[in-house]
Amino acid sequence: CMPPLGTSSLLVLLLLLEGGMFSSSPPPSGLLEKLFQYIDLHQDEFVQTLTEWVAIESDSVQPMPHLRQKLSRMMVLAADKLQHLGAGVDFVDLGFQQMPDGQSLPLPPIILAELGNDPNKPTVCFYGHLDVQPAQKDDGWFTDPYTLTEVDGKLYGRGATDNKGPVLAWINAVSTFRALEQDLPVNIKFILEGMEEAGSVALEELIKRERDRFFSSVDYIVISDNLWISQRKPALTYGTRGNSYFLVEVKCRDQDFHSGTFGGILNEPVADLVALLGSLVDSSVHILIPEIYDQMAPITEEEKKMYETIDVNLEEYKNSSQVEKFLFDTKEELLMHLWRYPSLSIHGIEGAFDEPGTKTVIPGRVIGKFSIRLVPHMNLSVVEKQVTSHLEAVFSKRNSFNKMTVSMVLGLHPWVANINDTQYLAAKRAIRTVFGVEPDMIQDGSTIPIAKIFQDITQKSVMMLPLGAVDDGEHSQNEKINRWNYIEGSKLFATFFLELSKLR
Amino acid sequence: CMPPLGTSSLLVLLLLLEGGMFSSSPPPSGLLEKLFQYIDLHQDEFVQTLTEWVAIESDSVQPMPHLRQKLSRMMVLAADKLQHLGAGVDFVDLGFQQMPDGQSLPLPPIILAELGNDPNKPTVCFYGHLDVQPAQKDDGWFTDPYTLTEVDGKLYGRGATDNKGPVLAWINAVSTFRALEQDLPVNIKFILEGMEEAGSVALEELIKRERDRFFSSVDYIVISDNLWISQRKPALTYGTRGNSYFLVEVKCRDQDFHSGTFGGILNEPVADLVALLGSLVDSSVHILIPEIYDQMAPITEEEKKMYETIDVNLEEYKNSSQVEKFLFDTKEELLMHLWRYPSLSIHGIEGAFDEPGTKTVIPGRVIGKFSIRLVPHMNLSVVEKQVTSHLEAVFSKRNSFNKMTVSMVLGLHPWVANINDTQYLAAKRAIRTVFGVEPDMIQDGSTIPIAKIFQDITQKSVMMLPLGAVDDGEHSQNEKINRWNYIEGSKLFATFFLELSKLR
Repeated sequence: CMPPLGTSSLLVLLLLLEGGMFSSSPPPSGLLEKLFQYIDLHQDEFVQTLTEWVAIESDSVQPMPHLRQKLSRMMVLAADKLQHLGAGVDFVDLGFQQMPDGQSLPLPPIILAELGNDPNKPTVCFYGHLDVQPAQKDDGWFTDPYTLTEVDGKLYGRGATDNKGPVLAWINAVSTFRALEQDLPVNIKFILEGMEEAGSVALEELIKRERDRFFSSVDYIVISDNLWISQRKPALTYGTRGNSYFLVEVKCRDQDFHSGTFGGILNEPVADLVALLGSLVDSSVHILIPEIYDQMAPITEEEKKMYETIDVNLEEYKNSSQVEKFLFDTKEELLMHLWRYPSLSIHGIEGAFDEPGTKTVIPGRVIGKFSIRLVPHMNLSVVEKQVTSHLEAVFSKRNSFNKMTVSMVLGLHPWVANINDTQYLAAKRAIRTVFGVEPDMIQDGSTIPIAKIFQDITQKSVMMLPLGAVDDGEHSQNEKINRWNYIEGSKLFATFFLELSKLR
Repeated sequence: CMPPLGTSSLLVLLLLLEGGMFSSSPPPSGLLEKLFQYIDLHQDEFVQTLTEWVAIESDSVQPMPHLRQKLSRMMVLAADKLQHLGAGVDFVDLGFQQMPDGQSLPLPPIILAELGNDPNKPTVCFYGHLDVQPAQKDDGWFTDPYTLTEVDGKLYGRGATDNKGPVLAWINAVSTFRALEQDLPVNIKFILEGMEEAGSVALEELIKRERDRFFSSVDYIVISDNLWISQRKPALTYGTRGNSYFLVEVKCRDQDFHSGTFGGILNEPVADLVALLGSLVDSSVHILIPEIYDQMAPITEEEKKMYETIDVNLEEYKNSSQVEKFLFDTKEELLMHLWRYPSLSIHGIEGAFDEPGTKTVIPGRVIGKFSIRLVPHMNLSVVEKQVTSHLEAVFSKRNSFNKMTVSMVLGLHPWVANINDTQYLAAKRAIRTVFGVEPDMIQDGSTIPIAKIFQDITQKSVMMLPLGAVDDGEHSQNEKINRWNYIEGSKLFATFFLELSKLR
């Protein structure tokens, strides 16, 4: 499924033959060919740079001073690279992070960089992160996670796909224009952070502060921090579900009871909680909270059609998920239930007996945890009210002597972009040009707050343009990016710059 | 509520005055008075011995070699004491205990001792244990747990009531006969172990081995390892509930899922499990498993009356339990639901998210844990079948694609004694004599396997004759035995010997 290297020239050829299908004329074929050729010829250099970046254990998750030093070194290395391209680089110092254990750790700076400020060109801002999830060879890696290792066209290493590869692909695209002494068709900005895997500490504040300065001239924001839904077919991501996380506490007293000396005479908090949690979804995962579906944006026929062409092999998906049977038999239903419908998952219970063995305890105070993935146009505070009223009604029917408390402890809005925005059209064309196919128009069932945050604060068009394949294993052992995805991805970004300037 | 010391002579007087109420004549008042006087006069010596025993940190729970050494020292000290009384002492070596971590720890020996073998006297065997629960001053003790400290007539120290105090009270009773050069009215045997708090390792095997030797001549077995139900009024315990512990596993796959990328398309194991657990009891703790109550022995009118005189102050009980409201308003209903009816408690879930915080996980495989306290004549294998069929029926209605497995991992029979057995009658008389009241005839809602094990293996009459008050705090911080309970308890055992020999 990995085309041999050099097919890109074939694709350019195909593109030239099929040129008539585009509404505006394709980019000058001469320039594209030169760009692609340069990228193909210098691909080993690009892989070498990725090797150097992966070699730095820029783990932001484990709060250790020596890791924070590596993280800072990573940020400096990236800033150097951008300065070499001629970018103006601003290191934003974020000071220190106070850890729960009292320790104070330095935060890596955020890089704000800009390259070009021609008012006649569109300005596109690329967001990426240079920190990684923890990884150790012992975790089950076949190779050292910090030594980028190529096997069968796959480049294995921590951060290869999440997110160092895509950041470098963007830089490769820019540097190719520079190397060929070609004018960049767009003004480019970068916002690169080093704390994404640890919750993007201080990022939102910075975006707010920079809204009227750094972001004022930005037209488009591109994030390339997710994956295709396929191993072969590129995708564009235009939405992510939100999330509302609930705690429901049932309390009799703070201490636990012995089930022999108290079993049979009191309302046991776990029994109350189990009844509450059991009232939330039925066995076909339909949410039972009254009116919860009322706010959901209606699904249009046009939208339904978009699901038909998406490259998902159900059998493959089931096998790779190790799930014997899903609740839906068609690709369309499956994807819509992941992206387009809310879902409710019960995560567990805090305060009950959760270890191996057979403790005979009546927990005195337990907290049930569940969350609802939200879709447009579900409103967080309406959902909070619906959930609370429902649980109060169920609890009140039990006539229990315990106390129940419901709280929504996390609320993240769903995000959806207008897929007719200029940058989506430009990206589609670029994908057609480089890969010869229409992209899968996908959403993400999980919650990626960054897109919604950028959109809400800056009010700019935000697009997620992934480069990695579905099996890249971000956050997991043996994370990789295919050489093909990395190199064709660099071409994709270069083509995107050209398309964006033309559509403008 | 603690009568001043010396009231025992007053009680003897009362006993003499009320002598006519007994079916047979009371023990020779002269001997009883002498015994009581001796015990009163030597009570400081008895407390001193308890101080020496409490000083040894005979913790069997924490698997540490230095604690096992202390445990062995404790057993040697007890054996010395018994030998000084003239008992033949047999140290049964139990070898080593293989710990799960690979470490091998010595087991303390079990003491089998005998004093007298007159075929014309009844033989009573006393079971006790000399090991204790862990305790450290830091846990919240007001005094050093291994320095017996008297405050307001309360003797604070780890093991004071559980079970060193009662073991010594029995020994005090024997030694008083010896000191007064009085013939012991009964043959006495001891079985003293050092691993009770760690699950009585190897005890059951030993009882089986000794059934036709050590236990062959035994008529009565007395256990004094529980508490009264009152602060003031003595009790006799004639039953304990059994327990059947169930695991119900629901599995989709071994790994967890991300709730964003899988929420909405599969049967989530926690949702299935919550439905299963929610089908077990209603909100008035009635068990919903079909036919589960069918085997329960019917409650007789005579039995109901026994509950009326039991000394429990509901208000006090509620306050000390920190429970705002129980499900029953009368003492009789409350006690019957603790002792006489089965109860089902859900303990928790293994494999779900149980920590503080907000993890958005769909657990892939979870195990629900619950247990049913059993009463006569509930049969373990019938209960196992009823529970399994019920859960299978509930699960099958859900049409879930997950796999469910039910297993009963622990089955302990309920125990109930015949309260008209000779030793119960003798103990009642002894209590009337020493305390001037009828004992509370109580059961224990929790499961104390030792009584049932002795009864099943030896086929002898087993009685639980507690000495400690309800507020002694066994297993907890600031464990204590009242000086009054310890000293009057020593008199109680001496009187019991006399009553037993007379009733025989």
